[in-house]
Amino acid sequence: MSRIPVGLVGVTGYTGMELARLLAAHPSLELVRATSRTDAGKRLAEIYPFVQGTRLESIVLTEPDPADLAKACELAFLAVPHGAAMDTAAELLAAGLRVVDLSADFRLHSPEVYAQWYGLEHRHPGLIPTAVYGLPERYAEAIAKARLIANPGCYPTSIILGLWPALAKALVNPEDIVCDSKSGTSGAGRKAGVATLFCEIHDSFRAYSLASHRHTPEIEQELGAVAGREMTVSFNPHILPIDRGILSTIYAKLAPGVGLDAVRLAYEEHYRPHPWVRVLPKGKLPETRFVRGTMFCDIGLVVDPRTDRLIVCSAIDNLCRGASGQALACANLMLGLPVDEGLASAPFMP
Amino acid sequence: MSRIPVGLVGVTGYTGMELARLLAAHPSLELVRATSRTDAGKRLAEIYPFVQGTRLESIVLTEPDPADLAKACELAFLAVPHGAAMDTAAELLAAGLRVVDLSADFRLHSPEVYAQWYGLEHRHPGLIPTAVYGLPERYAEAIAKARLIANPGCYPTSIILGLWPALAKALVNPEDIVCDSKSGTSGAGRKAGVATLFCEIHDSFRAYSLASHRHTPEIEQELGAVAGREMTVSFNPHILPIDRGILSTIYAKLAPGVGLDAVRLAYEEHYRPHPWVRVLPKGKLPETRFVRGTMFCDIGLVVDPRTDRLIVCSAIDNLCRGASGQALACANLMLGLPVDEGLASAPFMP
Amino acid sequence: MSRIPVGLVGVTGYTGMELARLLAAHPSLELVRATSRTDAGKRLAEIYPFVQGTRLESIVLTEPDPADLAKACELAFLAVPHGAAMDTAAELLAAGLRVVDLSADFRLHSPEVYAQWYGLEHRHPGLIPTAVYGLPERYAEAIAKARLIANPGCYPTSIILGLWPALAKALVNPEDIVCDSKSGTSGAGRKAGVATLFCEIHDSFRAYSLASHRHTPEIEQELGAVAGREMTVSFNPHILPIDRGILSTIYAKLAPGVGLDAVRLAYEEHYRPHPWVRVLPKGKLPETRFVRGTMFCDIGLVVDPRTDRLIVCSAIDNLCRGASGQALACANLMLGLPVDEGLASAPFMP
Amino acid sequence: MSRIPVGLVGVTGYTGMELARLLAAHPSLELVRATSRTDAGKRLAEIYPFVQGTRLESIVLTEPDPADLAKACELAFLAVPHGAAMDTAAELLAAGLRVVDLSADFRLHSPEVYAQWYGLEHRHPGLIPTAVYGLPERYAEAIAKARLIANPGCYPTSIILGLWPALAKALVNPEDIVCDSKSGTSGAGRKAGVATLFCEIHDSFRAYSLASHRHTPEIEQELGAVAGREMTVSFNPHILPIDRGILSTIYAKLAPGVGLDAVRLAYEEHYRPHPWVRVLPKGKLPETRFVRGTMFCDIGLVVDPRTDRLIVCSAIDNLCRGASGQALACANLMLGLPVDEGLASAPFMP
Repeated sequence: MSRIPVGLVGVTGYTGMELARLLAAHPSLELVRATSRTDAGKRLAEIYPFVQGTRLESIVLTEPDPADLAKACELAFLAVPHGAAMDTAAELLAAGLRVVDLSADFRLHSPEVYAQWYGLEHRHPGLIPTAVYGLPERYAEAIAKARLIANPGCYPTSIILGLWPALAKALVNPEDIVCDSKSGTSGAGRKAGVATLFCEIHDSFRAYSLASHRHTPEIEQELGAVAGREMTVSFNPHILPIDRGILSTIYAKLAPGVGLDAVRLAYEEHYRPHPWVRVLPKGKLPETRFVRGTMFCDIGLVVDPRTDRLIVCSAIDNLCRGASGQALACANLMLGLPVDEGLASAPFMP
Repeated sequence: MSRIPVGLVGVTGYTGMELARLLAAHPSLELVRATSRTDAGKRLAEIYPFVQGTRLESIVLTEPDPADLAKACELAFLAVPHGAAMDTAAELLAAGLRVVDLSADFRLHSPEVYAQWYGLEHRHPGLIPTAVYGLPERYAEAIAKARLIANPGCYPTSIILGLWPALAKALVNPEDIVCDSKSGTSGAGRKAGVATLFCEIHDSFRAYSLASHRHTPEIEQELGAVAGREMTVSFNPHILPIDRGILSTIYAKLAPGVGLDAVRLAYEEHYRPHPWVRVLPKGKLPETRFVRGTMFCDIGLVVDPRTDRLIVCSAIDNLCRGASGQALACANLMLGLPVDEGLASAPFMP
Repeated sequence: MSRIPVGLVGVTGYTGMELARLLAAHPSLELVRATSRTDAGKRLAEIYPFVQGTRLESIVLTEPDPADLAKACELAFLAVPHGAAMDTAAELLAAGLRVVDLSADFRLHSPEVYAQWYGLEHRHPGLIPTAVYGLPERYAEAIAKARLIANPGCYPTSIILGLWPALAKALVNPEDIVCDSKSGTSGAGRKAGVATLFCEIHDSFRAYSLASHRHTPEIEQELGAVAGREMTVSFNPHILPIDRGILSTIYAKLAPGVGLDAVRLAYEEHYRPHPWVRVLPKGKLPETRFVRGTMFCDIGLVVDPRTDRLIVCSAIDNLCRGASGQALACANLMLGLPVDEGLASAPFMP
Repeated sequence: MSRIPVGLVGVTGYTGMELARLLAAHPSLELVRATSRTDAGKRLAEIYPFVQGTRLESIVLTEPDPADLAKACELAFLAVPHGAAMDTAAELLAAGLRVVDLSADFRLHSPEVYAQWYGLEHRHPGLIPTAVYGLPERYAEAIAKARLIANPGCYPTSIILGLWPALAKALVNPEDIVCDSKSGTSGAGRKAGVATLFCEIHDSFRAYSLASHRHTPEIEQELGAVAGREMTVSFNPHILPIDRGILSTIYAKLAPGVGLDAVRLAYEEHYRPHPWVRVLPKGKLPETRFVRGTMFCDIGLVVDPRTDRLIVCSAIDNLCRGASGQALACANLMLGLPVDEGLASAPFMP
């Protein structure tokens, strides 16, 4: 059986590594191009010693050349920083490729909001309306027909899936939501820097970008679409001394008369057709290790009658579900494959 | 110079270890008794190999005997579980000792509230009014005169210090407060159990006891005293894969017209006489490592104009400021010593 | 396509978890029985929350019943402690099952040596000669025909693969070998105990069982078979604050005239037919993360001309290659499947 | 009481941090100058947030100016990289300061050996004979009189203390020694770089610089002085996912007729006058956490009769005993203070 050829633009970094890991075992896709400006000409195994002995070991890195990519591949993953991704996406689309962009460049519908939060004018606003937000549970049909996917951010994935049923069914007050999110350090990327050195992160914990993180407008846009109204949320990230995993603890005021049973029923019904979202049994709370390396989003539900609050705990793997795995799920849909092909592995314990 | 003799009842466990570490270097106190039912007769260095070569190495563990303790010591630290501590405290007090109880048994003014949250009738309700809550910044004078100290819980310490100025000066709405706290694993104690094995905690993260943790009534009692009204807060703990440290992220709605400058001024003025509470410069957020091994409580202040919220980040070392160091500060005050004697060390970096 | 039914006796513990993870994605094997004396009657997902949503979620734990297992399965994995495993293995074999025993009970050819190192008389010495040591690179043919596999220990796997070519080709002096091995904490199992609590392991490092670990005779037996003579080695384990991974640093005196090129050539030729053993390029050393979750054994080779020593660094994943993955490779061979079926995944990075 | 003024040249980096921590609590020394080319003019608390509220908070960083340092201080610590340190040391000595150099520039007696291992001609060979190797247990008298201290390397400290009695009393064969050392990541310094990012170190383990690390000639020089003959050892470092701590496992062939009792007696007698070196009770092995933040060197002794080997496990804190604490002990001696002043703290547990 021949596999569908795909490419990966921007191969250094943890999301690139994770895509490589997933593609090395994918039954229907074959990574045939991997590009890197700095490392062109080297074998992938020189950059990633861990791919030796896998299907990827003989890939030679190339300069990113749209014509070559379009000729060799049916689809390309973009794992380059925001700001740079928009131009590359435009070139690849023009060359006829389908594109899954892991950056933030096409996630926000409004170029003004993009400019405001990213400090950058969007250079391809005309492409924005063609991009589909790549959350498979919400947009599977549109994803299947899209030529450009804006792959969701890691924090937004955990929060949107955590609040979707509650907002869609008006179980909570949409005006007073606090999201306290904690992410593994791989979310900070693979750039050299003192702040993410081992000795600065290990055995410590801190918040950052409180109330000002760039994922805020993305969260508000997608929650707004669910709730059918404008949303303003308080989103507050923290950095964990773990490799991967995000856990968001989400606080919302319950709508009058709503109790735990109604909440549980709504979540269970809502996610029954979506097996990647696991609504945990009553009394259970998620742990990041239980979703490690997978597409699962584990959701724990607590109702606090003392303060009339719904507390949602939502856990994902930031690199797999929050980035590369989700990108691959979108690619599967775009290429006519089952959404979970190559993504059905069990979590890695411990 | 001769030192004041003190005793430690219940010497196994991480708070016992931390008290041992602090007493090994204290200029004016001398640990002369350390008790353990299970290990009586052994040298402390057999239980704690790390005290070999320190002032504590020759201490021999004894059975907990009130008469002996009262004869040998001027003050005793109780590091035994709640439920057991109340009886021991009563015996030691009756024998004439001053007592610093690290458990929760005398923290709550109401025995009914104690019974409700701890599932246990209080057997010495008459002693409760004599106990002073051992937060030195708030109750230094009463601590100095007390014979029984209820040493504060670790989470409450971080939250009370984090909210005190805001509530005392009515900068925030007292009705809608969410505390999202994260603690190092030493807070779970030193009992054998699968849930706190290395491989269950390392490289993972989870919440627990959401909206139902026993520290909730203690937080509400002390915040209520500050605010001058009954308080109900949403308190939600999580467990971090680090040894020590608590970071609480606290969300409160701002009172009308209050901005960052007013908040900062209030906190800076309030804590100027209390050097252990460090209000960080504008734009800085605390990290648990910056308070490691110390009595510092680092406070970062963020105002979010989009959601009209004050976000307070408050970090302490759960074993030192949140338990044994704070107990030692109380003992210092009770024995007429400077509050910070033996507690002036700089944080341990990295 | 229908899958071959297999069973797992003793499902708690980290090796059981790892087998569950691997079997959840195996294309040709189906876990149809999982036994546990303490948890019989529960669904596997209650014990292992992470298997919800996988092929394993509906398995109900049963009491270990040889007749039932033999009727339902073609092969059983034993993940019970040494000492207990030998009886269960005997019963399952008698009931007609093929057995892969992950314990040490059938690894040593000599029941006397077993008694000496394990402090236990062997109760089924007659079965010992029928057991095949389950190292696929060495014994693939015998494994394929065996009814009882003694699955190798984790440390021995790393050391035997690390020294095999050097001893087989007499590149080193067999008399003076030191193995300094370091293992992740999952190797200590999932029993409640203070010594492996998070706070006792994290941010610390120690040796244990120096020169006296039970894996010593197993290492000596298999190295002796390779070298064609009796071997005595100094084997010295340490415990790492990581979940999984073993790195063995092995020191041997070079035979006269042997240099790095000869060593590299011998290792590369020897392992060319065995793609799971990756002899790293000159100058590269293994890292445990590069083999995480896989069957790879990464080998780095250093020659020190100042001390005439060959230093071999050998890294494996102790749970996958050092236990459950290797057991599955043996099962594959016994059931006529490709050795690497269900085991071809790329490492998990980071 | 007025304190003796000292300076610190090169204040960024983990050894600088550790010196700051120790000086913040030193009863007789006062840090009055801290220099940094890149951060001159800033308050130390801006660089090190953790010193706020300590004696060091008001120090303002200055350009390194020998005249100013000599006028303000009686002694300077050099915490700058090797290669640069030699020139600064020469200038400071010329200006009349006593100098404790934490770099390697004056550790090796032979400028040729220095050039060979460090790839650098020594520019001040005339100063080398005036430098004293700052291991207080060995050279206390010379240190007290010295104007230039070559502060020992971290690995050498653990190995020299681990082997000293064995070599001095000829208990082992000096020809066949293997040192397998494992260090926390703070030993790699605080430079931005991918290799020491959290996600590259955490949950992984690797060796580096096997048989070729620059500490080798320093180890051999000092062991040679102890043994009274030229020494060649095999020194092999590894990097641990912990902040601080070194554990060296040292393998040596026993001299004929030497057993555990003789070894233990020799070590206990040898180190009786040196309380920082703790020879652990029979059967006990060191753990890096038991020496955390201290000057202790814990030594565990194992004799393996099967292979006629002495195995010494030696643990230190690489930042305190292996760098800044040892430098401070030397400064104490040079300034006429007790060697352990400001260094008597108990380990930090957990």
